[in-house]
This record gives sequence, C-alpha cells and structure tokens, in this order.
Amino acid sequence: MTSPAVRRTATTLADGRDLIYFDDTEPYVSGAATRRLDDPRPLPHRFAPIPGPDGVERPATGPEMRRDPLTGEWIPMASHRMNRTFLPAADACPLCPARTSESGTAYSDGEVPDTAYDVVVFENRFPALMVLPDGSAEGWDVDGEPLWPARPAAGRCEVVCFSSDHTGSFGGLTAHRVRTIIEAWADRTTVLSALPGIEQVFCFENRGKEIGVTLPHPHGQIYAFPFTTPRTAAMLTQAREYRERTGRHLLSDVVAAERRAGTRIVLETEHWVAYVPAAAKWPVEVHLAPKRDVLDLPGLTDAERDDLAAAYLELLGRLDRFFVEPDDGTPIPLPYIAGWHQAVVGEGRELGRLHLQLFSVLRAPGKLKYLAGVESGLAAWISDTTPERIAAHLQEIR
Amino acid sequence: MTSPAVRRTATTLADGRDLIYFDDTEPYVSGAATRRLDDPRPLPHRFAPIPGPDGVERPATGPEMRRDPLTGEWIPMASHRMNRTFLPAADACPLCPARTSESGTAYSDGEVPDTAYDVVVFENRFPALMVLPDGSAEGWDVDGEPLWPARPAAGRCEVVCFSSDHTGSFGGLTAHRVRTIIEAWADRTTVLSALPGIEQVFCFENRGKEIGVTLPHPHGQIYAFPFTTPRTAAMLTQAREYRERTGRHLLSDVVAAERRAGTRIVLETEHWVAYVPAAAKWPVEVHLAPKRDVLDLPGLTDAERDDLAAAYLELLGRLDRFFVEPDDGTPIPLPYIAGWHQAVVGEGRELGRLHLQLFSVLRAPGKLKYLAGVESGLAAWISDTTPERIAAHLQEIR
Repeated sequence: MTSPAVRRTATTLADGRDLIYFDDTEPYVSGAATRRLDDPRPLPHRFAPIPGPDGVERPATGPEMRRDPLTGEWIPMASHRMNRTFLPAADACPLCPARTSESGTAYSDGEVPDTAYDVVVFENRFPALMVLPDGSAEGWDVDGEPLWPARPAAGRCEVVCFSSDHTGSFGGLTAHRVRTIIEAWADRTTVLSALPGIEQVFCFENRGKEIGVTLPHPHGQIYAFPFTTPRTAAMLTQAREYRERTGRHLLSDVVAAERRAGTRIVLETEHWVAYVPAAAKWPVEVHLAPKRDVLDLPGLTDAERDDLAAAYLELLGRLDRFFVEPDDGTPIPLPYIAGWHQAVVGEGRELGRLHLQLFSVLRAPGKLKYLAGVESGLAAWISDTTPERIAAHLQEIR
Repeated sequence: MTSPAVRRTATTLADGRDLIYFDDTEPYVSGAATRRLDDPRPLPHRFAPIPGPDGVERPATGPEMRRDPLTGEWIPMASHRMNRTFLPAADACPLCPARTSESGTAYSDGEVPDTAYDVVVFENRFPALMVLPDGSAEGWDVDGEPLWPARPAAGRCEVVCFSSDHTGSFGGLTAHRVRTIIEAWADRTTVLSALPGIEQVFCFENRGKEIGVTLPHPHGQIYAFPFTTPRTAAMLTQAREYRERTGRHLLSDVVAAERRAGTRIVLETEHWVAYVPAAAKWPVEVHLAPKRDVLDLPGLTDAERDDLAAAYLELLGRLDRFFVEPDDGTPIPLPYIAGWHQAVVGEGRELGRLHLQLFSVLRAPGKLKYLAGVESGLAAWISDTTPERIAAHLQEIR
C-alpha cells in the first residue's frame, strides 16, 4: 500500500502501543531492521491491572462515550483508569528522536525509541478513544435510563511526527517529505478503517498556540472514530437529500460549481483545486480537493499524491503570508486547523469525497475569533468577512 | 406583559435604533417621561444613503446569509455597507449611562442617552443580523448557482445592560435586579418573536476575556434569528423522533430522568432544578430548567420568575467558587457562556422546553479547553472529565 520509495517499519512501545516508522531517504535509518531499537523506558503495560489505594489490583478501563439525548451526539469522556506512571521530563520533547549517550547507547526522554526518523506515527499515550484488549463494544444505560445510552469509546488516537527536526513547520518541509506524510496518512486510513466498529478516520493538524497547541515540534494527529461525527453526519444528510432530489453527487457538484464560478479559486494544479467555499464561515478558510472524485486518501493515485505535496505547500506558504505585522510587514505564521474530510467507512461511503478543510481563528493580527454564545451555545456561525474577500487576498499573495 | 413593578419606556437613538429602559426602582429615573433625554449624538441615520468615493450616494445594505451546501447551515456574513461614522472614544464605556456636565447638561460618550437606568436594552450598533427598512427577505443564488442560496440576514441583535454600574457582574446583582432582567428577556422574546421571519430568540451572556469579551460592563445579548440554528435543529430532530417513537416529550423526560437519577442534581427550588446533564460535554456545564413544562421565558409565571432570580444567583455564586487559585484558595471568577434555549417560533414549537445552558471553557486554573481540529473541524466533542465529577464538585460548594 505504501509506494516503493517509503519503507514502513512497525514496532511496539514498552507499554504496548503501536509505533510505525515511515522512512523515505537512504539509508532508511529507522526502518533498517538492524538499527531498530527497543523502547528502553520502564513503562508498565498500559492495560496492566492498576493497584488501588487498598492494595487490590483492578483491571484497566478505557474511555466511555455517552449519547446526548438532546442532540444525538456521542460524547467520549475521560472516565477511564489507565497506567500513567511514566511522564517525560518537562524540558524534554516527547516527539524528538532518542539521543545517544557518551557511551554510545541510545536513550529516550520521549516516545520515539530510535535516534533518527523521517516520519513516525504512534498511538497517543493519553487517548480520548481506545480499544481495550477484550475488544468489548457492548453498551449500557447511564443510571439505568434508556435516554442515556453509553458504550466504550473504542476508537484510536494517533500522533504523526512530520519531521525529526524539533523546529520548523509543515509549510517548511520539502515536497519529498510531504509526500511521505501523505503515504503515512493513507496507510493509517486504510489500517484504522479496517478496525472493528470504526466509522470514520480524520487526519488533521492543529498549528499555533492560539488554538492550544503546546508542543512546538511539527506534528499532526489521526482520530479513528467509532461513531459518525456531527459535521460528517450533516454532510451525509445533505448529500443524501441532494442525491434523492437530483440523482447527483453533492460534493462533486460543489467542486464543479466553484470551478465554474471561478471567483473564489485560489490555485489550480493538474489534479487539485483550492477554493474559498461560497459559504465559508471562518475568518480564513480554504478547501483543497482533487479534481477527480476520490473517496479518501488511500484512493489517490501516485500522480495525485505527488501533485498534492506541491499544491499543499503552495497553499500553506500563502497562508503564512495572509497576515503581516502592521508596523513592518513581517509575515505572521497563521494559526490554523487543517483536517481531511474522507468518506465514511460504512453506510453513506459512496456519498463522500475527499477534501482538506484548512481554516483559522485569526481575524486580524492579534485578533482572534472567539467561539462564544452563538457559536458554542447554538453551533451557529457569524462571519466577519466574506468568502470573496478571503479569496481575493489569497489570490494576490505570491 | 411586564409585571407592574417594572416600568418599560421605549425610545429611539439618533441613528434610528430602538432603546428600551426597564426601570424597577422609585423614582423610576429613566422611565419618567419628563426626564427622558434625546440622544444628543450627531449620528447619521443608520439607513441613510452612503456617499461613495466617487461622491455618489448609494443605499445602505444589510448583512446577508448564505446556505452552506455541505452542512445545510445558514451563515450570516458581514457583507453590508452601513453608516458607521460615529465611534465612542476609546476610553469611554458605551454601556455606561450619560454623564452630566458642569452646566447641568447631560452628554453621552456611549449608547445610553439618559444619566441613569436600571436595565436597558438597545439594538447593537454593528449587528450581524438586521432587518432593512424595505423589509425584503427575497433571496438570490450566489454566482447564479442554485447550490448556494443567499438571502438577507433579516434578524435582530440587541444588547442588554444588566446594571448601570460599570463594575461587578451578573452574579453580584440583587434578586430584585435579576427579576427585572428576566422581565426584559421575556419582553424582548415576545416582541422579537413577533417580527416577520424570526424563527428563534436566544438570550445569552458571555462572561470573561477568555471567551473574547472586551467590555467589562455587565451585559448580555439577544439574537433573533431568521433561521433555526444547528443545535436547535438537532434538538428538534431528536425531540421529533422521540415523540414519534414514544408519544412523549423528550426535553420533559430528560428533566424527569435527571430528577429520578438524582446523582447530578446541583440544586432544586420550588419551581426550578439545576443539573449537570448526563452527557455534558464542557469542562463545566450545568442546565437550569423549570419543573413545569414551559416553552419560553414569556411563559413563566410570576412565581417562577421570582424563584428563578434566586436560583440563578445561587448557581452563579457556586460557579464563581468552582475553581480556586492553587496557592491561596482565592476563588477564580469563572469565564462562562449562559444561553437560554427556548421553543422556536414556528414549526416544532411544541417540542421545545425552556432551559438555561451554562458552561465554561476553563478546564483548570489557567487552562482552557481549546476548540481545535476535532471540535471545530468535525463538531465532535471530547470531554476531559465526567458529568458526575462536575456535579460532585458543584454539590459540595456552599
């Protein structure tokens, strides 16, 4: 499934979590079996029984999720007890590769046992979604009330390190490395979609302290959900109604309409098109979609993946010049959220169409859009600008 | 509609906006016709034609809204041109009453022409939703594409000043004053619900700089929407399905189930009950609902309103002691969003039931819950806690 140029090497961390190296460059350092290093940390297995205050050991439990009867949404919640005895030192970056001591032994303060890597993916240490070893997905009712169904939040949360270099950002990577990340995303989408009960896989990046990112090391995340999330459910509802009414594919027609209108197109390559959607709701928002109808990242051809690496970097470059310091014109790195909307795994899969949604809460230098009463209380959005204004600015940035 | 103890006096600001005083205390200062002062500011009427750079005047236009074909949501956007020539001085609070000069003349740096008030409501100067004088609600298609319907965002945004005192907060008001605010909310809900095209009225308060509040003067807002907002639409869908399946009222049954379970009840008075909902998704969240099935604020009896004033203050008092400074135990005023969910005006009205949703993004002292990829990209929520933990803490605060 990965292209021949990328070597994929799977291993297991001391506490039982999966870690997968994706190496793209000779001598494929971390992928070379001879160099593969075991996790040296004294971590108890994450599913090991946990001693209670009374000395009695109790089995580890996973996160649960409850269905909100008011909205129908599933809410995963951190109700679980897990082994969390090991924490990295506060000054250590958990995403950096292991270091080599003076005696030549590798040691790690963080999550990656090897001393080098190109791209690496591993299971989140404190996951909001997790499958327990017994694999049970059986539900129950909170307080015995059928209004409040609950069940294990049996999904998966993974971290993707985009580079072993602690500094920098996604937009500063080479197209070669971005291509590897695309392979990793596609690989994880295929693998996680095949897990029992997974309904959708979301690959995303949060960038910037303005949205709460605390680790500066360039990284993204992948969530595999055991339910269909509200935005995805809304898109399925719209796409289904549209299909019933017109016999056509909604997301495909939206891309076609944007290309026909042309006014909000930000860039167009051989296989991809980026546009500010006609009803964009964020202060900065752009969608990047393949020209061909493609369900998800694994469905992209090699040519589409190559082209994506270049198109994505061009887009990120413009976004990092979207706002400038008012006094001296220095570009302001944009805090952003970039998420891949993919077709769901099960029912409604044929209604999906791959696209990246890239948006920011920055309204102006130093000014954030806050999600207060209207947004957080009613899920209603008010835009302070128009899609055409956002697009005009993105079009003029070179 | 207002109770006899509150005197309601409506007037118009210089630019044509409505302002309504709700006075509750002898000698009913701002409500006394003899003392009612005209707005002295040289504001052009907000709907006056606006001179363009070419010297030609063009008619003022209002905000528009577009329907997102991906989700079905209406997105109001600031596409309008309005007269905005007058801005208050940067050091002036626009919500404070007018001052009296040495010569005895009243003058105002802000929005309120009178030199005193108890509670005052006025139309927002820069509204996201606004009805234009021609009242047209006719729509069009963006770029001529039927995928992108648009129409005037013909609603209304109002500001509610809870007190003429610039300092303090809602939680520090007297029950007498809170009772007046309830009258004002009920009055505005009745009046705004009767405007053509309004589908729901939302009275809310954003409190705290953590959620972007820039004016410290205690105030809230009221939005009258010309569409049903996504959360309300989701609640209607759930309530409708529940009624079809069981013949019963969902929101009524939820309150009954919370009272039956009891574990998450925070306080109970003669007419009201406050509980952390079984699927709470925010770090702090509590709902306050009447025991009787009531559609909206105007539907409350005098006794229920009196009781609400006391119950709400008790709840806010506990929330402001929810987090304390780790070093010295000083209570941390909670940044919060408090919004009244009311029955919609039109179809589905009978499925509604009044309740206040009060929640915070503060997870711990100095730690916010950020709405990043999962929340903002997918509208999916992950809770770092459990409803039972929130409730236990709210129960122990006295």
